[in-house]
Amino acid sequence: MESKLEKNTATLILSCSDQKGLVARISQFIFQRGGNIVDLDEHVDPDEKMFFIRVEWDLSELNISSEQFEKEFHVLADEINAKWEIKYSYNKHRIAIFVSKYDHCLQEILWRYKNKELDAEIILIISNHTVLEDIANSYGIPFYYFPITKENKLEQELKEIELLEKNKIDTIVLARYMQILSPIFIEKYPNNIINIHHSFLPAFVGANPYKKAYERGVKLIGATSHYVTEELDEGPIIEQDVIRITHKDSLNDLIRKGKDLERLVLARAVNLHVSNRVLKHGKKTIIFQ
Amino acid sequence: MESKLEKNTATLILSCSDQKGLVARISQFIFQRGGNIVDLDEHVDPDEKMFFIRVEWDLSELNISSEQFEKEFHVLADEINAKWEIKYSYNKHRIAIFVSKYDHCLQEILWRYKNKELDAEIILIISNHTVLEDIANSYGIPFYYFPITKENKLEQELKEIELLEKNKIDTIVLARYMQILSPIFIEKYPNNIINIHHSFLPAFVGANPYKKAYERGVKLIGATSHYVTEELDEGPIIEQDVIRITHKDSLNDLIRKGKDLERLVLARAVNLHVSNRVLKHGKKTIIFQ
Amino acid sequence: MESKLEKNTATLILSCSDQKGLVARISQFIFQRGGNIVDLDEHVDPDEKMFFIRVEWDLSELNISSEQFEKEFHVLADEINAKWEIKYSYNKHRIAIFVSKYDHCLQEILWRYKNKELDAEIILIISNHTVLEDIANSYGIPFYYFPITKENKLEQELKEIELLEKNKIDTIVLARYMQILSPIFIEKYPNNIINIHHSFLPAFVGANPYKKAYERGVKLIGATSHYVTEELDEGPIIEQDVIRITHKDSLNDLIRKGKDLERLVLARAVNLHVSNRVLKHGKKTIIFQ
Amino acid sequence: MESKLEKNTATLILSCSDQKGLVARISQFIFQRGGNIVDLDEHVDPDEKMFFIRVEWDLSELNISSEQFEKEFHVLADEINAKWEIKYSYNKHRIAIFVSKYDHCLQEILWRYKNKELDAEIILIISNHTVLEDIANSYGIPFYYFPITKENKLEQELKEIELLEKNKIDTIVLARYMQILSPIFIEKYPNNIINIHHSFLPAFVGANPYKKAYERGVKLIGATSHYVTEELDEGPIIEQDVIRITHKDSLNDLIRKGKDLERLVLARAVNLHVSNRVLKHGKKTIIFQ
Repeated sequence: MESKLEKNTATLILSCSDQKGLVARISQFIFQRGGNIVDLDEHVDPDEKMFFIRVEWDLSELNISSEQFEKEFHVLADEINAKWEIKYSYNKHRIAIFVSKYDHCLQEILWRYKNKELDAEIILIISNHTVLEDIANSYGIPFYYFPITKENKLEQELKEIELLEKNKIDTIVLARYMQILSPIFIEKYPNNIINIHHSFLPAFVGANPYKKAYERGVKLIGATSHYVTEELDEGPIIEQDVIRITHKDSLNDLIRKGKDLERLVLARAVNLHVSNRVLKHGKKTIIFQ
Repeated sequence: MESKLEKNTATLILSCSDQKGLVARISQFIFQRGGNIVDLDEHVDPDEKMFFIRVEWDLSELNISSEQFEKEFHVLADEINAKWEIKYSYNKHRIAIFVSKYDHCLQEILWRYKNKELDAEIILIISNHTVLEDIANSYGIPFYYFPITKENKLEQELKEIELLEKNKIDTIVLARYMQILSPIFIEKYPNNIINIHHSFLPAFVGANPYKKAYERGVKLIGATSHYVTEELDEGPIIEQDVIRITHKDSLNDLIRKGKDLERLVLARAVNLHVSNRVLKHGKKTIIFQ
Repeated sequence: MESKLEKNTATLILSCSDQKGLVARISQFIFQRGGNIVDLDEHVDPDEKMFFIRVEWDLSELNISSEQFEKEFHVLADEINAKWEIKYSYNKHRIAIFVSKYDHCLQEILWRYKNKELDAEIILIISNHTVLEDIANSYGIPFYYFPITKENKLEQELKEIELLEKNKIDTIVLARYMQILSPIFIEKYPNNIINIHHSFLPAFVGANPYKKAYERGVKLIGATSHYVTEELDEGPIIEQDVIRITHKDSLNDLIRKGKDLERLVLARAVNLHVSNRVLKHGKKTIIFQ
Repeated sequence: MESKLEKNTATLILSCSDQKGLVARISQFIFQRGGNIVDLDEHVDPDEKMFFIRVEWDLSELNISSEQFEKEFHVLADEINAKWEIKYSYNKHRIAIFVSKYDHCLQEILWRYKNKELDAEIILIISNHTVLEDIANSYGIPFYYFPITKENKLEQELKEIELLEKNKIDTIVLARYMQILSPIFIEKYPNNIINIHHSFLPAFVGANPYKKAYERGVKLIGATSHYVTEELDEGPIIEQDVIRITHKDSLNDLIRKGKDLERLVLARAVNLHVSNRVLKHGKKTIIFQ
């Protein structure tokens, strides 16, 4: 899973009904056009009879253009009735981070970005508060302030979308953004909005999960990163983790310990997304490690 | 936390409103009567202003009888308005295990019992099926078969309670018992019925938690051991744990991996209970490790 | 990773220098002979420039015999200069378990075997003590007692090997066997002897690892399952895990907690081995999950 | 374990041979002088027959001065032949952080410090490189550059010690400082120098632990925070943790994943130290959680 930031590869993510010879056909297709497969992971779901594959190949000796490759692959994909997309390592994901007042998730992502652990471009940061502007500045990332009230919410969101479109953003990361996005965002960025929820979903959906966890007396707390869909906290889960707590931990201790989880879980989920390792399938994800 | 099966100690579990000098008064009380404290753990909840303590002392040089000790302690406890009980290592907990068809939790508990890892007496096993009778026999534990139908349920339960009372059972362990106990059990054995639920509560309450987890696409599955109360799966949690799964795991894999969790989590919870390390407080537990 | 005990598949494990088109050639080869690939996992080590693959395909529509298939594959394998072997689901691994006095690892394996979680045949149990004979009997597995002294060791081991060969054993599991096997075993069963060492290797090699861990004051203890090679505790690691301990844990607590680790880690390692998911490469293993 | 930065407490850490009535005597002593015990944790090591205690009490209604309290406690401590010290919440630990070029551990500590998760004063940062000066500046912590060569090492270290003494530093944190401190530091700051080693000690002592772990093929990598003693990587361990890796992880992946461990393990160890929860006993630590 080494992140080679300078690599020159294409990655196919594909799903279809299971059929004979899929791996052979796909790998043969790539091989015949000069692509050297550097990573291939496939999965057959025996219950659903579905086939899922992620293939990454070196582009350096490809003997046709990417456009021509995709055009020809379209024919094959139609024959097997597949959903697919091909991503290129030279087209990095373009990320907008949405934040409010908590800094831990933002810090974690910017820090990994600076340390070249995140193979993407962080284009801008949007916030409904100004608290985190200094952090954005210290990393040299443009920061946009959009105060949100009940009255101006839709109006402001339309301006945000305009900004995102102007900057060709393809991925939105909600790094403890304390607003619920209007459905218009989900329509514009289906499967490309990543949230971090501060509980082990589906436990403690909604507001104040640490308080609920504290009151329920659980022995572990969790964090969950998922794609945002129209139903709150119901989107496909990308990554989760937990940490042990005891009766000695106050609610503030839960919040403090939970922060460490949130930032690591969100960072891992964003990393999986930008390295094209997540295939969304219905309400679930296939994670190609 | 060494389990010394041959030890000769008393253990006080006490809770009350926080007041000055509680540790001093209690430890002084024990010391003055010849008790040598071998373990003391206390906790003050700053939000609720509650004091919780577990003290264990060696009885070998106690200069009064246990009856006299308790009589005198009663006076102190009344002064500080405490809830308390004292358990003696020579009065081991007397356990009845309830099972249905799954053997993994029963096996785990009997095995640890045989290996002297469980400081209690397993007196008998009750089942609504005969499948596990051979296992009971191989460990030499009496096995009682009470088939349950809609019609005979209450009648059979009354016979079970008669059997439990005759055998002076104080603790019931539901080792994947696939029946819901009638409230009469909970009245007779308040805070002394331990269940294992095969999910990370409060996620996936009720039936078929693995199926629900599979369909939700979680990345970790869990198991929870808790005291049984009148509300299903809502009792105070004693112990929980989780294990990582992936999209490659089928529903059967979840069930298989979950079994390993269930038996370890239940075994740990039973061990905490019989070594008098669990203090129930409202909907939560204080675990004195 | 579902263990379908009734499946009818072949599994190729192959390694060679990395070359272009390997996945395409291998999958094409299988496809053209009627094999439907149900699982494929490959890995390229960019440092060593080595290629590793595990492919499993359904045999039910294969249009040639397995013998013919292997004969033809030999040609391909020679061209790419590969090390390889093909295993068939109908040829289950034949296991001999070696034990001494500890029962926990033996119990765990037999229990999973009985519950059909282990896709192999456990043919016999060999011991230098008679303590565990009853357990063997209760599961109906033949038990052979070979007392070992300094004087008779080699002689007894030769008899053991004779017994193993007569029973066509291919895998030896050392389930806390307290003897060091003579090199003759390693020659006869290269890469097919699985040991459990009760520490997180390479920490605490050799005798009394829990005592060493206790004295060093580590905060986690571990267990390691590995293939046996001529150097003690130096063979390729298959699986490891750890558990948290505290200063409250006595040496006996470490031993007790460690047992839970040992049996789970060994069970997982044996399961990986018998499902042909382990590729040994030098001093390391590739684990195809 | 809530960190109340504004609390007004004293904390006694004491060890002695086990004797009757120790808890009673100590708690009585505190109570009689107006101290309200808010946390008490004791441990008796049954093998060594040693007694360890940590008691924290509220100072707000203490009816004598701290000086007088300590003077009187001295008498008691002499009677029971104890090693002890009392720390006051208003005397925060004064920390110097030593770094070289890696920023992850420094960032983690400064960030928690800024977020008031670390109940101490970070007075200054010392480095043998200038790479991390900007980070120090961004948090407003004085940064001192002491380039080290073979020739000037002792001379520079003497200057460093002079700087530490001038600033009344009591705790040194080596946050991936790539120099071995001369014994003079260990004499001046016995048991108060905290190091992070990037392996699960005692595995992979010394240089390049990730490379050694990679070559050995371990399935988990670790990090260990310990007090520095004269023997390299042999000091009492404060905290350790591990993370799972696979054959897919390159050496660079190990280094990247290990960083996440290192910073969390070091942060936890420093937090335990500054909240006076670590009692050093021989080659081991007692951690009062």
